[in-house]
Amino acid sequence: MGDWVNMAEVWRGDILESVHRGRAVVCDSRGEVIAAWGDIDAVTYPRSSCKMLQALPLMESGAAARFALTPEQLALACASHEGAHMHTDRVVKWLGDLELGERDLRCGPQFPRAKEEQEELIRFGQKHDRTHNNCSGKHSGFLTLNKHLGGDAEYVELDHPVQQAILTAFEEMTGETSPGFGIDGCSAPNHACTLRGLATAMARMADPSALGEIRGQAAQDLVSAMKAHPELVAGQGRACTELMDSMDGRTVVKTGAEGVFIAILPERGLGVALKVQDGATRAAETAIAALLVRLGVADPNHPAVIKRLCPKQYNFAGLETGRIAPASALYADGAAI
Amino acid sequence: MGDWVNMAEVWRGDILESVHRGRAVVCDSRGEVIAAWGDIDAVTYPRSSCKMLQALPLMESGAAARFALTPEQLALACASHEGAHMHTDRVVKWLGDLELGERDLRCGPQFPRAKEEQEELIRFGQKHDRTHNNCSGKHSGFLTLNKHLGGDAEYVELDHPVQQAILTAFEEMTGETSPGFGIDGCSAPNHACTLRGLATAMARMADPSALGEIRGQAAQDLVSAMKAHPELVAGQGRACTELMDSMDGRTVVKTGAEGVFIAILPERGLGVALKVQDGATRAAETAIAALLVRLGVADPNHPAVIKRLCPKQYNFAGLETGRIAPASALYADGAAI
Repeated sequence: MGDWVNMAEVWRGDILESVHRGRAVVCDSRGEVIAAWGDIDAVTYPRSSCKMLQALPLMESGAAARFALTPEQLALACASHEGAHMHTDRVVKWLGDLELGERDLRCGPQFPRAKEEQEELIRFGQKHDRTHNNCSGKHSGFLTLNKHLGGDAEYVELDHPVQQAILTAFEEMTGETSPGFGIDGCSAPNHACTLRGLATAMARMADPSALGEIRGQAAQDLVSAMKAHPELVAGQGRACTELMDSMDGRTVVKTGAEGVFIAILPERGLGVALKVQDGATRAAETAIAALLVRLGVADPNHPAVIKRLCPKQYNFAGLETGRIAPASALYADGAAI
Repeated sequence: MGDWVNMAEVWRGDILESVHRGRAVVCDSRGEVIAAWGDIDAVTYPRSSCKMLQALPLMESGAAARFALTPEQLALACASHEGAHMHTDRVVKWLGDLELGERDLRCGPQFPRAKEEQEELIRFGQKHDRTHNNCSGKHSGFLTLNKHLGGDAEYVELDHPVQQAILTAFEEMTGETSPGFGIDGCSAPNHACTLRGLATAMARMADPSALGEIRGQAAQDLVSAMKAHPELVAGQGRACTELMDSMDGRTVVKTGAEGVFIAILPERGLGVALKVQDGATRAAETAIAALLVRLGVADPNHPAVIKRLCPKQYNFAGLETGRIAPASALYADGAAI
């Protein structure tokens, strides 16, 4: 299938204006490839798509139980949220429960993506802070684990016990030795893996039968929390939230920066991972929607699915100018996988 | 060189995270190809990169002279501005001079890109309007031409005299029969052409010696206006403005949506056009900076050039996470063209 495969087309009128390429793979929990597009053994950064893997040590260590974390908190630990009040209020309370505060977060301050909160900050002349960072829930999870382990305050350092526990879980779930890491948008290390390894890890989240009791329970609890609280995983109108909502809690999806998307399909015991070569979110959303339809878990006629699978494009005057569509190499006639 | 060529690389730490491909060509005013990357005869939409071509009928018809348009207004007619006061104030005055108003613009209302004006609108509970649209200067030019021609109010219709005059000028400058058009973000028709045709048109703007007296003067006046007022062509901190500033008015550059960039090099009589396959602005900026350096008109050590040629990437905490760099297929060792 070549190194990269066409994933999404951007049409303006009758002329193809832009094209996005990518790689994608569907695996089962043994790492067997069910379907693949492009070079799935090339190395990629999972970015935020692997937050549920990064949350495994929080569960397995007993930290989550000790601090009686709720499913809402677990969903936030796996979230790239938009800094709406429903997210930041919960993070502030969580930090308070740990007798910590905003200053203890090691993610930087990020202007929220949520429009209402953006306008509120501007109207009241307030500054955004670290609780608005889309990763503040993940970092609250890191801080919870750190409190349990008794590590020092610099929990995003590579050799810190929190990050070492995450690296171990990440390598065990992907079945690979990570070839390197990068500093993520939130300052935590982000470990690289192959796309096949990432899909395998997601299949193991979907089908934890071979993971042993402790990790198996951890995986199930995290997947259940994400399925139960899609609005906390991203936010109103966002792809992860709306796609999960549309699938009635049957499937978990999670985006990552630079065009990554994963899916966890518990009913089929499968995992999906994809990466758009150029990093475009619009293409990653179209591609994951296409794969979810082909995997039989998303309805191609549901408005939330249409919005990603083949969204019409409008200009500032509201005129329809074109559309985005999955490329035939990926979607063909939507045949089942 | 193949259909598409690597143009820009996005690195995170030591691992290549994303890659952008594209096509680029440098032509002279006879349409001779000086250098090329990828299939330059494929059809593309120039989008906003061709606004100076769309402004030619405004000049050639005598409308600009009749309404005594200033170089500032001509720069705005060729602009994709960010809706700052320096742009909208001039547009409002221009419309008033024509005894027209915001309601006569056929571009839709666009929330301004300029941060200060964004915050001002929110703080004072005001709505953005059509003067904030990045094309409101171009549309003021359309309205000026329309007033001169005595056409009806719907000046963005394909068969309207304003758009027919633009199509004629566009085809004459590109030396091609346009294979079709799309509706642009501002509701005006955007005619497609080859990348070679677009670069040829820009070379003719750079070297108007064979265009005849009227068109030659029109081209010179528009290029001079853009060179004299780079801040009106885009805005503070924007690529077009900063790159033109850095080149001391020796070269005109103009971006277009979906990863298009053009350059007009009067000193060398050359035109440049490039298109990023996936439509990414970050890659188009890196690619045009690379070509401007290779063409000897941009200084690779100037901060405004570095910011596009090889910008370091930082996260929300201010940590350096990686860099964007021109791909070797495009930039190699920066050898002169």
